[in-house]
Amino acid sequence: MAPKTAITPTREQDYPEWYQQVVKNADLAENSPVRGCMVIKPWGYALWENIQRVLDEKFKATGHKNAYFPLFIPKSFLEKEAQHVEGFAKECAVVTHHRLEAGEGGKLVPAGELEEPLIVRPTSETIIGAMFSKWIQSYRDLPLLINQWANVVRWEMRTRLFLRTAEFLWQEGHTAHSTAEEAVEETRKMLELYADFARDYMAMPVITGEKTASERFPGAVSTYCIEAMMQDRKALQAGTSHFLGQNFSKASDIRFQDSNGKEEFAWTTSWGVSTRLVGGLVMTHGDDDGLIIPPRLAPSHVVIIPVIHGDDTASEVMQYCERLALELGEVCYDGRRLIAEVDKREGRGGEKVWSWIKKGVPVYLEIGPRDIKTDSVFVGRRDKGRRERYSQSRAEFVGSVGNLMDEIQKSLFERALKQQQDNTLKIDSIEDFYTFFTPRNREKPEVHGGFALCHWNGSSEVEEKLKKDLNVTIRCIPTDAVEEEGKCIVSGEVSRRRVVFGKSY
Amino acid sequence: MAPKTAITPTREQDYPEWYQQVVKNADLAENSPVRGCMVIKPWGYALWENIQRVLDEKFKATGHKNAYFPLFIPKSFLEKEAQHVEGFAKECAVVTHHRLEAGEGGKLVPAGELEEPLIVRPTSETIIGAMFSKWIQSYRDLPLLINQWANVVRWEMRTRLFLRTAEFLWQEGHTAHSTAEEAVEETRKMLELYADFARDYMAMPVITGEKTASERFPGAVSTYCIEAMMQDRKALQAGTSHFLGQNFSKASDIRFQDSNGKEEFAWTTSWGVSTRLVGGLVMTHGDDDGLIIPPRLAPSHVVIIPVIHGDDTASEVMQYCERLALELGEVCYDGRRLIAEVDKREGRGGEKVWSWIKKGVPVYLEIGPRDIKTDSVFVGRRDKGRRERYSQSRAEFVGSVGNLMDEIQKSLFERALKQQQDNTLKIDSIEDFYTFFTPRNREKPEVHGGFALCHWNGSSEVEEKLKKDLNVTIRCIPTDAVEEEGKCIVSGEVSRRRVVFGKSY
Repeated sequence: MAPKTAITPTREQDYPEWYQQVVKNADLAENSPVRGCMVIKPWGYALWENIQRVLDEKFKATGHKNAYFPLFIPKSFLEKEAQHVEGFAKECAVVTHHRLEAGEGGKLVPAGELEEPLIVRPTSETIIGAMFSKWIQSYRDLPLLINQWANVVRWEMRTRLFLRTAEFLWQEGHTAHSTAEEAVEETRKMLELYADFARDYMAMPVITGEKTASERFPGAVSTYCIEAMMQDRKALQAGTSHFLGQNFSKASDIRFQDSNGKEEFAWTTSWGVSTRLVGGLVMTHGDDDGLIIPPRLAPSHVVIIPVIHGDDTASEVMQYCERLALELGEVCYDGRRLIAEVDKREGRGGEKVWSWIKKGVPVYLEIGPRDIKTDSVFVGRRDKGRRERYSQSRAEFVGSVGNLMDEIQKSLFERALKQQQDNTLKIDSIEDFYTFFTPRNREKPEVHGGFALCHWNGSSEVEEKLKKDLNVTIRCIPTDAVEEEGKCIVSGEVSRRRVVFGKSY
Repeated sequence: MAPKTAITPTREQDYPEWYQQVVKNADLAENSPVRGCMVIKPWGYALWENIQRVLDEKFKATGHKNAYFPLFIPKSFLEKEAQHVEGFAKECAVVTHHRLEAGEGGKLVPAGELEEPLIVRPTSETIIGAMFSKWIQSYRDLPLLINQWANVVRWEMRTRLFLRTAEFLWQEGHTAHSTAEEAVEETRKMLELYADFARDYMAMPVITGEKTASERFPGAVSTYCIEAMMQDRKALQAGTSHFLGQNFSKASDIRFQDSNGKEEFAWTTSWGVSTRLVGGLVMTHGDDDGLIIPPRLAPSHVVIIPVIHGDDTASEVMQYCERLALELGEVCYDGRRLIAEVDKREGRGGEKVWSWIKKGVPVYLEIGPRDIKTDSVFVGRRDKGRRERYSQSRAEFVGSVGNLMDEIQKSLFERALKQQQDNTLKIDSIEDFYTFFTPRNREKPEVHGGFALCHWNGSSEVEEKLKKDLNVTIRCIPTDAVEEEGKCIVSGEVSRRRVVFGKSY
């Protein structure tokens, strides 16, 4: 009989429902009364704040400066780039009035109709482009390297917490350069920054590569992405970086005088990651007991749970725990103070332990009167099973807790990397391809597939066929693909390198 | 003849226009093509980030946790509290459609009408209240202490950069408590936190107090505020903290079981400060040469300007400056590393110096070949005149730069405090009151008034009359008012304490 798990259903039983339950039980977020919009709860928001802090430092270290642009985009701005507006018109929130007024029967109705409707930004290329065209006159003003942390709205019909919501939080970098080469270099540099962040902080291995034409950002010349494999073997696009060529600088009239006095259009880029990363973190590391947070992004590193059996020892145990939390707070981990907290809530120790397991805190300590007698702590590692808990002297634990965090961070990454590698296959026949992407078991429809590395003739017809038959798409043309002779898995035509196929979120 | 100033006009010539020019010349922000919405440029946004960082630490240190709630509020939610909707209905952006579609002649028009219009949040009491009502069941769930950093929209018709814009950035704290006393204590505690922040970081003295009924937040039982005096002697409301009683918990059904099992409505508060603070900082410290930033909030503390006269010394000077910047970057100031930057732009030294003066950097160093020979730096303090620059050995400067910052911070506060005190008067006759608030000079209509401490009978008729006659309002009933017998300045009726009158932004 399988041991009872804290999350029902398990990943194997129903992966999508498992995901919702982990998000709920970890208290990360929940649906709001506003269609498609989520509420990010404190534990989930603290994760996002940590993601923000690390990325923001990296952006600034690479010369980018933060700024803030309007929430609203006039309809005519969105229309300046034809592909861009086509890509976003179907899913945008439109502001048409600027007040409420008592109408028939005293009911409040929209009033004060706007001359031109305003779109709640789905992304900010066009409004930022309008400002760039004012700010940029000469090659001396370039490169212009700007980032914005903001909320955006895309009216999605089928939403899922963090992964696809009508409103989400993100950062969007927007840069302008005097040459195409420099803009392409920026596009790639920011993609690598995202990949490093995913690997080093989220402990989430990713494949970097370029999107095919059919998956490009509306208006981009080329779109690069990082793709991660979730535990259901589906791909999650976790970040994108776009080389926009001169498309948006022509649409927004971003011109500059080069060093010879000649006027040219600037070359622009944009790149972003969003609160979707939180969903990626859940699906990369979570297990059937709930969330597991990599230490480098954890809102708390160590939770101390006092085990109190009677009133006579209660205050002694509580004091010991609080002293320990202070001591741990002096430890330097990852360039900052370690965060340790004592769970002082009323209630049974066991229930408290389980609540922290579900929340994914990297290490939980249980401390009762017997532990205090031997000046030791009972250590639970969230990345290991409950049976692997161990007792350790307090001094030894405090002295090695930084190493312990590093070890957990590393073990989470290695587990995720193994999962990705085990489910990435070179496939050369169309039969094997269809088998790979067809559910093997009607009871567990989600447990199949992965990343298939296959040759492709470069045509969108092939992409359409595979999407229609299997709901499989090309996730990217990987950056590190080796040149090799091959034949397109569908058409048999010549191909020079393999691309990554997968089912996606 | 008056010396030439970097900002035209001067404060005395035209204060409102001086303000716009300082904001522009310091590169803080500018108007966008979207009506009433501003673009916050990197130097202005960096100021806001510093404000955010300090406040966020203070909120967390007092037990508050950050979360994020939807941008949109269903119309029916806003309508739940009668005074609240009345207060905001006239100035709200209304989303009525969720896509754009080709209409007549192929033009894109709003389509997909929503069943219920959504309001872009002007403030979040109602949507957060809806979530609180789910999260709060028992007294054990209280107090619930939440803060949100977000953008909000109020459709203002007459806007001014930072001071009054259709969209602005702010934080809004929302808390729920089991007793009225505890909620009132929270309201006051957060007001004091704002006052401390204004004084200690912004170097901006403020008066704390309570608003009269006519100036209360729509739906609040009582509104507390911090009020600062700008250099034109007008008052700026710089932060507010509201005790909401049970008004919003009744509207949103936020109930809890107390320790006796009895069901009660919770007592709630809300409190906020916004990007308006940046405007307050400009108007508190700026002079006729531009912005002056208090060191504790400065995006850069020291700017080093290489003075290069010929190519033969250029690289030597530049290297000296860069080494000095690194050395300064090792200095600890205010718990963080000092931020020093070298201005490496092309162009004349004098122009560069002026650009930093206008941006308000606390200290600027000019370094040329002669300074290097004596291993010294030429120091300009932004809070002092250009003629007060002095030469100092490099070692001495580096060794004392932290003290220098403290000194500048202190001098700015003292100057602002003197300005406030010099223009705060006890007034006991209605004639003196009218004289105080009437422009003395047609050429300089802004230079008059200040804070008048007067007795008031507590009636809104008196408030209305003074507002109509002089555009003067009661800024607050000050927290530290002493009990004294007096007579209302208008009606002659008995009054127990003085209130603060002023013209406001």
